[in-house]
Amino acid sequence: MELSISQIAEIIGGEINGDGTQKISSIAKIQEAGEGCISFLSNPKYEPYIYTTEATAVIVKKSFQPRKILNTILIKVDDPYLSFTSLLEEYDKLISFQKVGIEDPCYIGKNCKIGENIYRGAFSYIGNNVNIGNNVKVYPQVYIGDNVKIGDNCVLHPGVKIYSRTIIGNNCVFQSGVVIGSDGFGFAPQQDGSYKKIPQVGNVIIEDDIEIGANTVIDCATMESTIIRKGVKLDNLIQIAHNVEVGKHTVIAAQSGISGSSKLGENCIIGGQVGIVGHIEIANKISVAAKSGVSKSCLKEGTVLLGSIGFERNDYLRSYAIFRKLPELQNRIKELEEKIINLRPS
Amino acid sequence: MELSISQIAEIIGGEINGDGTQKISSIAKIQEAGEGCISFLSNPKYEPYIYTTEATAVIVKKSFQPRKILNTILIKVDDPYLSFTSLLEEYDKLISFQKVGIEDPCYIGKNCKIGENIYRGAFSYIGNNVNIGNNVKVYPQVYIGDNVKIGDNCVLHPGVKIYSRTIIGNNCVFQSGVVIGSDGFGFAPQQDGSYKKIPQVGNVIIEDDIEIGANTVIDCATMESTIIRKGVKLDNLIQIAHNVEVGKHTVIAAQSGISGSSKLGENCIIGGQVGIVGHIEIANKISVAAKSGVSKSCLKEGTVLLGSIGFERNDYLRSYAIFRKLPELQNRIKELEEKIINLRPS
Amino acid sequence: MELSISQIAEIIGGEINGDGTQKISSIAKIQEAGEGCISFLSNPKYEPYIYTTEATAVIVKKSFQPRKILNTILIKVDDPYLSFTSLLEEYDKLISFQKVGIEDPCYIGKNCKIGENIYRGAFSYIGNNVNIGNNVKVYPQVYIGDNVKIGDNCVLHPGVKIYSRTIIGNNCVFQSGVVIGSDGFGFAPQQDGSYKKIPQVGNVIIEDDIEIGANTVIDCATMESTIIRKGVKLDNLIQIAHNVEVGKHTVIAAQSGISGSSKLGENCIIGGQVGIVGHIEIANKISVAAKSGVSKSCLKEGTVLLGSIGFERNDYLRSYAIFRKLPELQNRIKELEEKIINLRPS
Repeated sequence: MELSISQIAEIIGGEINGDGTQKISSIAKIQEAGEGCISFLSNPKYEPYIYTTEATAVIVKKSFQPRKILNTILIKVDDPYLSFTSLLEEYDKLISFQKVGIEDPCYIGKNCKIGENIYRGAFSYIGNNVNIGNNVKVYPQVYIGDNVKIGDNCVLHPGVKIYSRTIIGNNCVFQSGVVIGSDGFGFAPQQDGSYKKIPQVGNVIIEDDIEIGANTVIDCATMESTIIRKGVKLDNLIQIAHNVEVGKHTVIAAQSGISGSSKLGENCIIGGQVGIVGHIEIANKISVAAKSGVSKSCLKEGTVLLGSIGFERNDYLRSYAIFRKLPELQNRIKELEEKIINLRPS
Repeated sequence: MELSISQIAEIIGGEINGDGTQKISSIAKIQEAGEGCISFLSNPKYEPYIYTTEATAVIVKKSFQPRKILNTILIKVDDPYLSFTSLLEEYDKLISFQKVGIEDPCYIGKNCKIGENIYRGAFSYIGNNVNIGNNVKVYPQVYIGDNVKIGDNCVLHPGVKIYSRTIIGNNCVFQSGVVIGSDGFGFAPQQDGSYKKIPQVGNVIIEDDIEIGANTVIDCATMESTIIRKGVKLDNLIQIAHNVEVGKHTVIAAQSGISGSSKLGENCIIGGQVGIVGHIEIANKISVAAKSGVSKSCLKEGTVLLGSIGFERNDYLRSYAIFRKLPELQNRIKELEEKIINLRPS
Repeated sequence: MELSISQIAEIIGGEINGDGTQKISSIAKIQEAGEGCISFLSNPKYEPYIYTTEATAVIVKKSFQPRKILNTILIKVDDPYLSFTSLLEEYDKLISFQKVGIEDPCYIGKNCKIGENIYRGAFSYIGNNVNIGNNVKVYPQVYIGDNVKIGDNCVLHPGVKIYSRTIIGNNCVFQSGVVIGSDGFGFAPQQDGSYKKIPQVGNVIIEDDIEIGANTVIDCATMESTIIRKGVKLDNLIQIAHNVEVGKHTVIAAQSGISGSSKLGENCIIGGQVGIVGHIEIANKISVAAKSGVSKSCLKEGTVLLGSIGFERNDYLRSYAIFRKLPELQNRIKELEEKIINLRPS
């Protein structure tokens, strides 16, 4: 992906000081930028870097007056930070949404309804009775099972697997290796010590504006639906068990797991490697610190939980601070025991 | 998947009260069922729901006499719960085992022996000298390496990867993204600080009646075999390292990890996010609570372990209860220290 | 994979006592070897096994004189252990590097530069402007995005996904299900409680001699690069977030996670299920015990960390030993309180 400085200046509406034909191939912070990079200078604290940077171009304020010689081309704008982020977004669109059309070979079943402006990568598989909206990117080696519905503007990165009956809204992004709709982990213990599988005939519903990280798994419901509400963001390698519901705009960091039938509220923030047991309820705006376990319902909005059997974060930190000093505490008890013996009336 | 009420009545041997031509497309609990759903009423406690449910049909006892007007069709049977679970199983078979035959393109190597009634999905890959039994479903994008043996009635969901030399029994189900037989993590430290790979030339043996959850990984043995015994159920995102053995009918919940060469007994229940160190032995019928670590062998049948360095669950809970009150404990010690100073003979 | 005993003797430069035409199909320890296996005897402690082993052949010292009747063929060498490990390596090469050439169908985009002696498995996908060195194995169902660079002698096992712009050095091995370059987890909270995605336009750089375990994920940088330095070994199901740097010859065990922008030193040893928070620095030669959390920078070389909020391992073990006895400690405080009441001057 290469753009000329003139093209970039046009995108962000800036004025060039220098050679507009030079090429930009990457974007970086000013203190780390190399040749072919474009960067920006907004906070005056970083001004010294502009005199030493190897960036090919730097976006600066219109009012910027260099105090030393510059080896970089300037693009002058009203608000460098805003221009830089909009450039970032444009650049991102250019590098990630460029593919359209159907690569060969790919597979599609019967009775499918596919929208416009679709990318279907080679070796992607679409089953029967699938319904896909407009502007959807089905990357190579993606699997979409029978009777799946997918809305508009979704991106399914290479190797995503969507089991039959899954329903997906608009503007959802699935990173590689995501599995949606695998069988819930339900087995009935038998008298001989073996287990009998409980059929998992429900599905998964993914609403709008959802991002799901690489190799994350969401199991289908035993009956009815596992539900991920609008705006949820899931990081990599997360486990969402059958019949879970994750509330609107809740964010979960990598490697966390939510056990069966638990219900998370809206706008929760769940750290990495958290475990939440099954069949509990978590209110809105609850935070759970990384590596914590949640073993019972938490219905008080705004609570911050911490600990392997999590409780209020500040209480945990107070206890943990003393845990670190337990040998000292033990010694103090020993001393007290010795002193009291000496005090005992003989 | 749609069935008419008449078809369902035939499957479960029931008698219809109402319009048998109506269509059922889903199965749900009576309190959550919507239009197009079938549900059941077994426990009289739930009877009120039958008068308000939106379910298109409900399976009820032959003796059921409604006390109010019903908006749902009835299917009358001897034992509604039993009929419902058998319907669930039939329904599950209908929706999950319908595919047979070979989709195009798919790849098969030399000298393979493939049974009858097989499904080989598009973009599935079967290497050389592979031996597959009857009624096996190889979904799209599955990989089966050279010299692999697979028994009868196995289901390999989309994207499962089976490395060469793996041996799989009958009636096994692998969810999407499962990896079986990847290299064990064995490296010999060298004098210059680098590591040299120890060749991993063993394999994995998966016995009969085993379920493996999405994106779970089982490494091959350094030499000989990593073994998963009959009836084991593994949830999603689990790590089984090289040369591990998991005993018959042991169940492991999501995101747990078993380190190299450890041996788990039969009928153990391992919670989610558990870690078990390498080279230890776990007896039969041991339970390990979610998020716990097991750092040494546990040879007493029936033990329940809990804690980051796990010990007996009840002992852990007693200690943890006091951990939560450590600030109070510390204050009590402080008070004692002050009192004893006042008591000291001057 | 079958070799005759004569072929093996030639590989390791040994002298046969017995029938050199017999076939070897597997390698095992002497106490576990069965028919068709080759094993070795180096430590005299294991000598009793050679008289009962079912191994078809055993590698022994030239000076070995059996004291009982043997049912196994001998291959005599100077150093049996050394010969055995070199046989292991040869055997491993034979079973894992045998494939070369292009299977049909596979996909390749425009302007690619592909080296010599390449394997491109069926259903593998190579995008545009990809540059691949010599002796690279691209197994079936692998995805390589646009503008990716891969050095010599790399192995990409079935189903590996490499996003665009990733740069990979020489001699790297990726197990099945590895995802490299997925979007970093970066979202800016908005006033209405929703989140806006921060474009992730950086990439991942994987240097030389790196092994990455099955279903491990490495996210691309927001800008610039997530970097894995020379000789790093990553186990299965690991999460490496955006802009992380892992230093030379650092080893990380399964299911650990490194949060965004953290920097690990060289020759660190990170146990399984470890979590490291974002934006911190870990010095060289730090060890982190399994299941621990690291919540702040650790700049002292050689530190061993342990605990959910990790600190010095020995200190943690001392505290944890007392944690296990907290009920006893609580009782001692109670006793002191009672005694002191009795002592109080009335």
